[in-house]
Amino acid sequence: METTEKNIAEYIKDICVRAKKAAPEMAKATAGQRNLALENAAKLLRLEREAVKAANDLDMASPAVPAKMLDRLKLTDARIDGIADALEDLCRLPDPLGRGETWTRPNGLRISNVSVPLGVAAIIYEARPNVTFDAAALCIKTGNAVLLRGGKEAICTNRVLAELLRRALSEAGMPADGVILVDDTSREGTQLLMGMRGYIDVLVPRGGAGLIRSVVENARVPVIETGAGNCHVYIDRAADMEKAVKIAVNAKVSRPSVCNAAENLIVHKDIAEAFLPKFAEAVKEYGVELRGCERTLAILPDITKATDEDFFTEYNDLILSIKVMDTLEEAIAHINLHSTSHSEAIVTEDRNAADIFKRDIDSAAVYVNASTRFTDGGEFGFGAELGISTQKMHARGPMGLDALTSRKYLIEGDGQTR
Amino acid sequence: METTEKNIAEYIKDICVRAKKAAPEMAKATAGQRNLALENAAKLLRLEREAVKAANDLDMASPAVPAKMLDRLKLTDARIDGIADALEDLCRLPDPLGRGETWTRPNGLRISNVSVPLGVAAIIYEARPNVTFDAAALCIKTGNAVLLRGGKEAICTNRVLAELLRRALSEAGMPADGVILVDDTSREGTQLLMGMRGYIDVLVPRGGAGLIRSVVENARVPVIETGAGNCHVYIDRAADMEKAVKIAVNAKVSRPSVCNAAENLIVHKDIAEAFLPKFAEAVKEYGVELRGCERTLAILPDITKATDEDFFTEYNDLILSIKVMDTLEEAIAHINLHSTSHSEAIVTEDRNAADIFKRDIDSAAVYVNASTRFTDGGEFGFGAELGISTQKMHARGPMGLDALTSRKYLIEGDGQTR
Repeated sequence: METTEKNIAEYIKDICVRAKKAAPEMAKATAGQRNLALENAAKLLRLEREAVKAANDLDMASPAVPAKMLDRLKLTDARIDGIADALEDLCRLPDPLGRGETWTRPNGLRISNVSVPLGVAAIIYEARPNVTFDAAALCIKTGNAVLLRGGKEAICTNRVLAELLRRALSEAGMPADGVILVDDTSREGTQLLMGMRGYIDVLVPRGGAGLIRSVVENARVPVIETGAGNCHVYIDRAADMEKAVKIAVNAKVSRPSVCNAAENLIVHKDIAEAFLPKFAEAVKEYGVELRGCERTLAILPDITKATDEDFFTEYNDLILSIKVMDTLEEAIAHINLHSTSHSEAIVTEDRNAADIFKRDIDSAAVYVNASTRFTDGGEFGFGAELGISTQKMHARGPMGLDALTSRKYLIEGDGQTR
Repeated sequence: METTEKNIAEYIKDICVRAKKAAPEMAKATAGQRNLALENAAKLLRLEREAVKAANDLDMASPAVPAKMLDRLKLTDARIDGIADALEDLCRLPDPLGRGETWTRPNGLRISNVSVPLGVAAIIYEARPNVTFDAAALCIKTGNAVLLRGGKEAICTNRVLAELLRRALSEAGMPADGVILVDDTSREGTQLLMGMRGYIDVLVPRGGAGLIRSVVENARVPVIETGAGNCHVYIDRAADMEKAVKIAVNAKVSRPSVCNAAENLIVHKDIAEAFLPKFAEAVKEYGVELRGCERTLAILPDITKATDEDFFTEYNDLILSIKVMDTLEEAIAHINLHSTSHSEAIVTEDRNAADIFKRDIDSAAVYVNASTRFTDGGEFGFGAELGISTQKMHARGPMGLDALTSRKYLIEGDGQTR
């Protein structure tokens, strides 16, 4: 089939119409049905693992896949089991729907405010095919229909995975169109998808800064921005030296490619001379490239000079910018200006400084004497995570199932008029 | 001053920068300070009522103001007292900030999720100058800075009101720039304002369908859509006749210009012949124009025929469309297709039909045996209302103070690393 722009537009419209039609049926499904669909999906994935791996091999063999992407793309037996286990865990979480409060008004009206599905979710992500299952599972659990737009590198794997999910829904008495793979990974197709106002109730981009930027610029449907993390660790004048070194090293090196890793270190001038050489020594074995402001260079003369640009950069790599500052207040102002409002930490034994930092830092997660690396649904105890929101509306920080729900007021009367 | 596009752009940028600078100071203010600012504002408004009325007279005297707008524009002594009373009531509501839960993780991290201000709110509204005080008061109570873009017809009044609010803030030790009147009511200025990404955390349009549409199309900042209400009353086959007539009449006539008034009546075929003549008789004295489908016309031959367009129309007037349908399920599908997802009611004595209606209608407020006219923050018991959201994300239905807050995770550790 010759793929013309018109064809793409028709295709995107068609799948959106199908998802919107499936959404009320998904919303009607009982908690038992939704959990059954998840169990079915886990079982089918284990049962059909050879077919999944064969499709994954096709993706892996494509000469178009960059070598550094291969690890993210690969589905091993262990990863397949991990995905299936996660689905079974999700079954055991409490039903996120129908929760809320009820109150009675003086006129006798009984008002309930309950959680309901959002409707149609669209998830745009990159090479990792496990997201196909993870994201679909969260949407099934919350009674939403979902459009899955994965990366072109994983398209063969995703086709097989989506079919399994659709069978799992059907076998639970739910509509197969509750899960639809967007089988068009062109740029035009994705932009059309982002513009489907009235069909998509929430669009969640999961991926790098480029994807997030494109979604924020092009989307005409409600979006939850995720993942950009230019995170800071601030070493206060009253920091415990041991904690300071341990936390700063951990926040940078334990997994530098993820969004909750630290990219910047801000150091109070009173502690800089004692702290910075110890930190530089501790971090040496990890091969971290340090870039410093003038005052940092006066203490660590061998490192590179940081530019203004550095302080705005999420490296996602073993690079760290360091700035020495005069006061807590200046540090807070610097962080609020440069941060992506994801996660920031202060290391201090001064209760007052900690409280000011917690109050005035405008980020989703604010830490006192702990590593920024804990910003994660699992670490927060949510049992499931859709991503980490860096916006302020609807959901902020690690998102559990609630982020995929809306609310509805249900009012019972006996003929009341106003 | 000659107002060029460049001047407007500079002006809008300047006020946004000032609001963004004020926002963290607003957020730092204690609950006591915020309530003091509200008390100050109420006192100043009563004290300076002559100046307010003089400015209002200037607006009222402008030949550019359409006659039908004059009532909304007018500030009488009673209205001024009403505004001041509402501010004093708002003081007595509990602090919406700093509320949330705290839990401890197995690794000892203590995590709190607390409510915080959104930052900078922008409110775009039309002629009614009371919104200047109401909206600013809600923002002060929630620790947000606010940009107020009122209608050009009320500009003289709004200038005086905004000055009073700014004095009230200063006298409470808060930044005057916590309240800024957008003293440019040009179309260009408003469109520029809607595009101030990074400066405005939430934009709330309060007004008619045209304003909402313009905001939804042009805004590049997060928006809470409000107010469009194509509301339905469905008379089920098992309706109590007396309740049915009373509720349908009330929903249409008690205040036809507001968003929670009914615009459509859906009638089950089994009850249509008994109900429609009674309803037509009851509504006659209010001068309501009825428009019906073919089957309605067979019962009420003297009324106008409704077009497809009618069923999508929010009249905000004494007009009502009527459709006879075969089943509850068809009625629900019709409502979900035509509604703006604001408020819908079923009248029935059949518990099962009521439950299906509540589950399957996808609107902010779903009523059983009560008028749609109750969708209102005051009627729901919220004490304060910012508007009625017709979107699904962040806030849905009547919005209390919570709609102007975000959340923040605060994590206390003792050196934890991951």
